[in-house]
Amino acid sequence: TTVRVATAAELDAAIAGAGPGTEIVMADGEWSDVRIRLVGTGTAEAPITLRAETPGGVVVRGASDLWLAGEHLVVDGLHFRDGAAPGDAVIQFAVSDDSLANHSRVTNCVIEGYNQPQRDQTDLWVRFRGRHNQLDRCYLAGKSNRGPTIRVDLEGTPSAFNYHRITNNHFGPRPPKGGPSAETLQIGDSSTSMSPSHTLVEDNLFDRCDGEVEVISSKSNFNEFRGNVFYHSEGSLVTRHGAYVTVDGNVFIGDGANPYFGGVRLIGTGHRVTNNYFFGLRGEEFRAPLALMNGIYRSSINRYFQVTDVTVAHNTWVDTESPWQIGVGSNVDQAEVLPPSEIRDQPPVRTLFANNVLYNSEGDGTPILRVDSIDGIEFRSNVIDNQGVPFEGVEGLVERDLTMTEVVDDVWVAMDGVAAVPVHHGFEFDQIDRDLFGQPRGEQNAVGATNGTAPEAVDLFDPSRYGPAWFRPGAEADGPGQTHAVRTPDELARAVAEAGEGDVIELAGGAYEIVTPLAIDQEVTVRAADPGDRPVIRYAGGAGTPAFEMNPGGHLRLANVVLHGGAETLAFAPLRSGMSSLYTLEVEDAEISGFDAVLRAYKHSFADLVRLERVRVRDVANGLELAAEDDDRGDYNAERVVVLDSRFETVGSNVIDYYRGGYDESTVGGTLVVRGTTVTGSGADDADDVLLGTYGIINVDLSGNTFRDNEVERVAVLWGAKNNTHADNTVERSGEIVVEQNLPQRLVY
Amino acid sequence: TTVRVATAAELDAAIAGAGPGTEIVMADGEWSDVRIRLVGTGTAEAPITLRAETPGGVVVRGASDLWLAGEHLVVDGLHFRDGAAPGDAVIQFAVSDDSLANHSRVTNCVIEGYNQPQRDQTDLWVRFRGRHNQLDRCYLAGKSNRGPTIRVDLEGTPSAFNYHRITNNHFGPRPPKGGPSAETLQIGDSSTSMSPSHTLVEDNLFDRCDGEVEVISSKSNFNEFRGNVFYHSEGSLVTRHGAYVTVDGNVFIGDGANPYFGGVRLIGTGHRVTNNYFFGLRGEEFRAPLALMNGIYRSSINRYFQVTDVTVAHNTWVDTESPWQIGVGSNVDQAEVLPPSEIRDQPPVRTLFANNVLYNSEGDGTPILRVDSIDGIEFRSNVIDNQGVPFEGVEGLVERDLTMTEVVDDVWVAMDGVAAVPVHHGFEFDQIDRDLFGQPRGEQNAVGATNGTAPEAVDLFDPSRYGPAWFRPGAEADGPGQTHAVRTPDELARAVAEAGEGDVIELAGGAYEIVTPLAIDQEVTVRAADPGDRPVIRYAGGAGTPAFEMNPGGHLRLANVVLHGGAETLAFAPLRSGMSSLYTLEVEDAEISGFDAVLRAYKHSFADLVRLERVRVRDVANGLELAAEDDDRGDYNAERVVVLDSRFETVGSNVIDYYRGGYDESTVGGTLVVRGTTVTGSGADDADDVLLGTYGIINVDLSGNTFRDNEVERVAVLWGAKNNTHADNTVERSGEIVVEQNLPQRLVY
Ligand SMILES: [Ca+2]
Ligand SMILES: [Ca+2]
Repeated sequence: TTVRVATAAELDAAIAGAGPGTEIVMADGEWSDVRIRLVGTGTAEAPITLRAETPGGVVVRGASDLWLAGEHLVVDGLHFRDGAAPGDAVIQFAVSDDSLANHSRVTNCVIEGYNQPQRDQTDLWVRFRGRHNQLDRCYLAGKSNRGPTIRVDLEGTPSAFNYHRITNNHFGPRPPKGGPSAETLQIGDSSTSMSPSHTLVEDNLFDRCDGEVEVISSKSNFNEFRGNVFYHSEGSLVTRHGAYVTVDGNVFIGDGANPYFGGVRLIGTGHRVTNNYFFGLRGEEFRAPLALMNGIYRSSINRYFQVTDVTVAHNTWVDTESPWQIGVGSNVDQAEVLPPSEIRDQPPVRTLFANNVLYNSEGDGTPILRVDSIDGIEFRSNVIDNQGVPFEGVEGLVERDLTMTEVVDDVWVAMDGVAAVPVHHGFEFDQIDRDLFGQPRGEQNAVGATNGTAPEAVDLFDPSRYGPAWFRPGAEADGPGQTHAVRTPDELARAVAEAGEGDVIELAGGAYEIVTPLAIDQEVTVRAADPGDRPVIRYAGGAGTPAFEMNPGGHLRLANVVLHGGAETLAFAPLRSGMSSLYTLEVEDAEISGFDAVLRAYKHSFADLVRLERVRVRDVANGLELAAEDDDRGDYNAERVVVLDSRFETVGSNVIDYYRGGYDESTVGGTLVVRGTTVTGSGADDADDVLLGTYGIINVDLSGNTFRDNEVERVAVLWGAKNNTHADNTVERSGEIVVEQNLPQRLVY
Repeated sequence: TTVRVATAAELDAAIAGAGPGTEIVMADGEWSDVRIRLVGTGTAEAPITLRAETPGGVVVRGASDLWLAGEHLVVDGLHFRDGAAPGDAVIQFAVSDDSLANHSRVTNCVIEGYNQPQRDQTDLWVRFRGRHNQLDRCYLAGKSNRGPTIRVDLEGTPSAFNYHRITNNHFGPRPPKGGPSAETLQIGDSSTSMSPSHTLVEDNLFDRCDGEVEVISSKSNFNEFRGNVFYHSEGSLVTRHGAYVTVDGNVFIGDGANPYFGGVRLIGTGHRVTNNYFFGLRGEEFRAPLALMNGIYRSSINRYFQVTDVTVAHNTWVDTESPWQIGVGSNVDQAEVLPPSEIRDQPPVRTLFANNVLYNSEGDGTPILRVDSIDGIEFRSNVIDNQGVPFEGVEGLVERDLTMTEVVDDVWVAMDGVAAVPVHHGFEFDQIDRDLFGQPRGEQNAVGATNGTAPEAVDLFDPSRYGPAWFRPGAEADGPGQTHAVRTPDELARAVAEAGEGDVIELAGGAYEIVTPLAIDQEVTVRAADPGDRPVIRYAGGAGTPAFEMNPGGHLRLANVVLHGGAETLAFAPLRSGMSSLYTLEVEDAEISGFDAVLRAYKHSFADLVRLERVRVRDVANGLELAAEDDDRGDYNAERVVVLDSRFETVGSNVIDYYRGGYDESTVGGTLVVRGTTVTGSGADDADDVLLGTYGIINVDLSGNTFRDNEVERVAVLWGAKNNTHADNTVERSGEIVVEQNLPQRLVY
């Protein structure tokens, strides 16, 4: 029976009356603030179905969610946007702890930007519980608040042995969150990591899933990751907890430059990494193309188990830097500042690398990066073409001239040169009976991710394989922006308010007195019409307000302007609350003066990038303040802060104050680059007596700068154990640059 | 093809030539110092078989072992005795780390007393590696040295998912070892406890398997324990590490008195305890009839995981004391002396008790012993007949009058009274489709271990179910001992040397001067022919030698004698080395004087019982010295020391010195009982200034004694946190009895 419903009340009534074979059709249109509780008992042959009248025709918005409980339920074709979950999850395979869904499926749905108003507010978009549930052909993109996009929960026996299936989905861009708990997928957690899971994640596209250092965090046993594409995603597939995970036939694509794109990171026992392909990855340590971590001796359940009994076989790495990083996370040298239960000193053991291919079109000095001993690893029948560049090898990794063929963009397979290398036959290698492209490994077999023959058609990047057929990601984006010329303050205010995505606002020369903040909530460029005739924007708004108010998703490019403000106002600031997503601020060829602060970040705000290039800052009380996350839980206010060829003069304090508190080794972020910049006469009022505050920031590069006549004790205190460097700086009457190897840190977890 | 072999060389040659279907027959007789390496590849249909000409006709002795590697091997009918393994294991399913056995079987074999010469020397009798191996119809008894009788090793993927079968074996008596590492069966260890195991242990008889506190230590995942009988065994079946263990249809039989007989002790996640029967158990804490332990928050892998997601259903407890002990091992009150990572403060959660039956012919005040919170446990449809004795109940445990029927010795099933209690149907309870006796649970079902009907024939204790058909345990023991009358020292020496098991030697009155130690290597009674005319044994042997030398297996009952020795000699002592098994010393109605020490225990010696009753000790330098295990690894020199109605006069030091060092909460042993005894004029030379040294002994009972005029600071220092008590003692000019709640301890593990 088919029941058409047009209101929430009708929907509830239809559900209450549903039985095996009932099809409930939601009328096309917007459904607002609707809490769907699909509870019922269908059968395998006759499920209970809830579907949109037209796939995608039903937009669910506002404070809405969809929770399921019972058996054999199907949801098809809903589109969640313009809202946020009123509870813990948008879609949940349970309505309560006692009422779970089993054998149920959500297909052909979209969740877009369905975010809580602030990034510290935690929720999930899809929460699996029960057993044998499925999410397929869905598109999920843009989650910016705390919490994994999808989480599989294993608590309670009815959710163990779950055999869930997550297949053929398109996971669209997830912006960096700046701190932990922003995985695209998490399966289990440390406290349930002894439970058998058996979740299958197959044939999904992970498309620019940044979020945090883990795209996928597998925290339970027997999960399988097969045939997925990880495309330009700033994180790794990580076997964080749990054992016996299969990583087979996946593709990891980088761009040869971005060091944030990761591969596979292994912790624990019994994993099998086979038939995978890695391209153009430049990540180090936690984001290595393949990282085998060091474990902790007798680790507690929420820390790092030793890598044991792992098989890495029949994979291919092409143009990746130090593809095999062994003993990652070793921190023996931090024994002074960490308790013994934190010391990762147990390198991998009982581990086999066999039949892998490494190809570098430019030779790599350290294809095997030994962070700790590799004695516990056996190498058999691995091949490298390193263009003759010398490296420290091992027995079982032989050099050959290989001929690579590109079978689809960025995917190169080894054709000539591998046939002569005998394939090692290890324990259970008979189970590796297909290659990356599904071709049989029988008589015809070879080292590397393919069986030595060219596949016929490669549809890895075919969009029709992923997500709903009815939905084209990015289809709603406008074309290139338009340019608007303005001459008066009113015109400027109106242009900013009415601008479309990507628009350019060009200011004629002259003065613009502004008293109300200019709100930036999309990508907008504000610049001089004539770079030689810089307009002067004078901000005379209320105390504590900014000239440019950065809203969620706002991206301001400001160029060739002079920006002056009153001593109680700010040049730039995000919202004080409600920063549901990140913002970006880029300023070039500008002059900023008079303000209380150039940029003041508030708690829970997050900038993807703050970039000042050829900017002169003078006579302001404060510079770039990015230190409002003071909970010491690993969060921070900006992913990248870049200051190039600029000048800071007479900045009272906080020339730069950039802070990340709380020790969590898996947070690898925070990047500060200051180059070619001069700071003078500044810091006299600084409470910390430090010119550039960088506490807890992992990547710091201070080079080619001049620090002169600054009344501070220290220019900066760098963290030697992390990626903090300084070079070629001129320091005069400004204290000094100090490097401390180990900074005392508060543990996050 | 069948090949008969009569020498080790012929055997090696036959193995070298063996292929599918080969049957190698070992000639009947004694094979000494033979290291059998059965390496070959058979098939499922045509295995390679190595068998005794006549089952049991081949005795393998001396420094012999049997190691297997390859596929489909069978060993049948060997008898190991009178020797010890020259390597790590008597029988091993591997010949090296790289060469394991699979699909192989050892059947119909016996290993008896095949012990290393000293208890600290470690070995195994059967070591499983590889996959799909089987031990069945074997009899193993009398292991007394360190190391589990059988261990299943999971190290390395080829030994994971092992599906071994241990079935229909008879595990005969294993004496207490006095310290850890004396399990009858251990499966995995903490470092491999994340590996899937799937070992099946079915239909075995565990007959007086004492050893240590764990009869079975399950340390891996998915093991199954089904249909086993645990008879008068001083330990428990313990899910020490690993998850998802099945304990179904087992029987645990106590005697209503011995508090060492245990049941099931649970740690960790996902276990199912169903259809089991418990009778006459009196154990507490670690040896409780059912113990659910407290866990450690974020435990390290070798400590205590929290109990979660456990099901306890359809079990029956009859005449057990406090059958359900919840939160066992809670040690919150020891936070002062233990590090936080040792504090077991996490009580069980997400745990279900359903359809269980408790019957007490005398009511029990605490059928549910709450060591910690039971809020995380759900109780449904449990029934108790407590004879109206009040107790603190829970919802889900109802009182009913039950009628119990004894279907075989000690096995009572509930017939009337249970039918009225509806059976709770919990998650996956449809898998509980048989009862304890294999009867179907369908239409006919009931709470408790049976389906509510009486089984037809119960063969639980039928000896033909267990062990080899050709072997009858204990068949070689002699009948009751004979009595020998002696009148002279020579007759005494000869009678002791020639005595048979259980013999009694009766001494006429008069003096017996002895210069050579009397070696006791079996059960022998030495007593006055006429209790009214006590013979006087004067020992004048060499310095440091004992009048009675306790050998492995020796059991001396000495009664109604006067024993006097020189100041450099000992009344009793074990061997200085080579104590491969324990000894027992019982002295009644005797007088002992003059010696350097009454009893001097050496390192690695172990007494099951030292009992003095109505004994007068005087003018000796030392009393009972049981403090030679000074490694602080949990070992100790005697299980029970009992002194009743005795007198100690002018004992220079160590009236009693009884020591167990090293904190390992799972060692529950050491028992000292001193009652009705007087100590005077003693302790003046005591180095510790303590009259009775009891450091680290778990059970101490000092009551009704008199301590007078002893030059010591303290009579004893008792351990308040353990089972140490004192009452009704008279203490005059002897220091005092001190109770310290928490003794500082060195961690063993
Ligand atoms: Ca994470
Ligand atoms: Ca043990």
